[in-house]
Amino acid sequence: MPLRRPDVLDGAMRLLEEEGLAGLTMRRLASALDVRPSALYWHFADKRALLDAMAEELVSGVPEADPALPWDARASRLATGLRTALRSHRDGARLYAGTFVARPHTLRIGAALLTAFTDAGLPRARAMGTAFTLLYFVLGHTIEEQAHEELHATGEWDPDEAAAATAPYPGLAQALKEYENSTPDQRFTDGLHNFLDGVRYQLTEHRGG
Amino acid sequence: MPLRRPDVLDGAMRLLEEEGLAGLTMRRLASALDVRPSALYWHFADKRALLDAMAEELVSGVPEADPALPWDARASRLATGLRTALRSHRDGARLYAGTFVARPHTLRIGAALLTAFTDAGLPRARAMGTAFTLLYFVLGHTIEEQAHEELHATGEWDPDEAAAATAPYPGLAQALKEYENSTPDQRFTDGLHNFLDGVRYQLTEHRGG
Repeated sequence: MPLRRPDVLDGAMRLLEEEGLAGLTMRRLASALDVRPSALYWHFADKRALLDAMAEELVSGVPEADPALPWDARASRLATGLRTALRSHRDGARLYAGTFVARPHTLRIGAALLTAFTDAGLPRARAMGTAFTLLYFVLGHTIEEQAHEELHATGEWDPDEAAAATAPYPGLAQALKEYENSTPDQRFTDGLHNFLDGVRYQLTEHRGG
Repeated sequence: MPLRRPDVLDGAMRLLEEEGLAGLTMRRLASALDVRPSALYWHFADKRALLDAMAEELVSGVPEADPALPWDARASRLATGLRTALRSHRDGARLYAGTFVARPHTLRIGAALLTAFTDAGLPRARAMGTAFTLLYFVLGHTIEEQAHEELHATGEWDPDEAAAATAPYPGLAQALKEYENSTPDQRFTDGLHNFLDGVRYQLTEHRGG
């Protein structure tokens, strides 16, 4: 039976889980699927094309936001859905960042965010920039979150070493300690609120000015 | 003459420039420095330790923000300095994201951001979260910016293909076109203002409530 495109994509997602992004090579993927590398290149011109398809696959499950909801609830749901989708695979955020996928699900999410911010009252180009800013926050947050989890999982995180290093900055050390009492979900929500409050502030300014 | 730690670090920064992050392996670095891999491991326990040292090196040039400046000017300068530092090396942002460096320059920047936000009036744990949110925006923005530049530089970006893909979303296509008229610096500044305005909004709320 010939190798189909979805088989390659499934194999790549499994290999990502096992090896992480750094271990995902076309050679290893061919070996895992028990085919010659040329069989992969028949479906994906190069590794970048494969990564783009994986990125699109990652976000395919991000749910629609009910258009009847207010703009900020829609933006929150899309951002939260995106974080959940990126977290559903090892190194998901790191994989997604830096791909430029002009494919249905990525475009659907982009269009929904844009509409949320134009509905809020921002001019179109500004609303587009705002959507990108939200995306950058979600990506940065989730990359660091996943990297942190991996460091802890592999035992590479040494809290004593970190404590010793931060000792010269007592205010920072104390703040980090308090900050680490919050859950990753709370931290994400706080960051999201910071972003949404910025949009609210700008809308007030616009109305005021 | 024996290989010194700074030689390894310099060689690694040069290799990053030539090969990008994906091409940076301990084997290639040893070969570029004309030493056996074991000579590298004498200075860096593993690749992660090398990446952490490179990340710290990347941000060593981020300038101090004058403590006499208002909190928002300080946060802006630190964020802008961080973006500039990350952009000074190929894949700089991608390298920095996901390292957890408890070293002098990273801690100095973290402490300065924390102080900016406590001076603004945020409670300490909240100020710490706010500093991380800003860091996540800068990282996400700069990763995407560098990836975009690389795609253009290598000729892998096909504007016609992108235009065809966005055609089913005319509002999005138009907004992207308008957005692409702005410079990367303007986009970064707009995102930074979105973030700072969020802090301003929260300070107003605190005062009001």
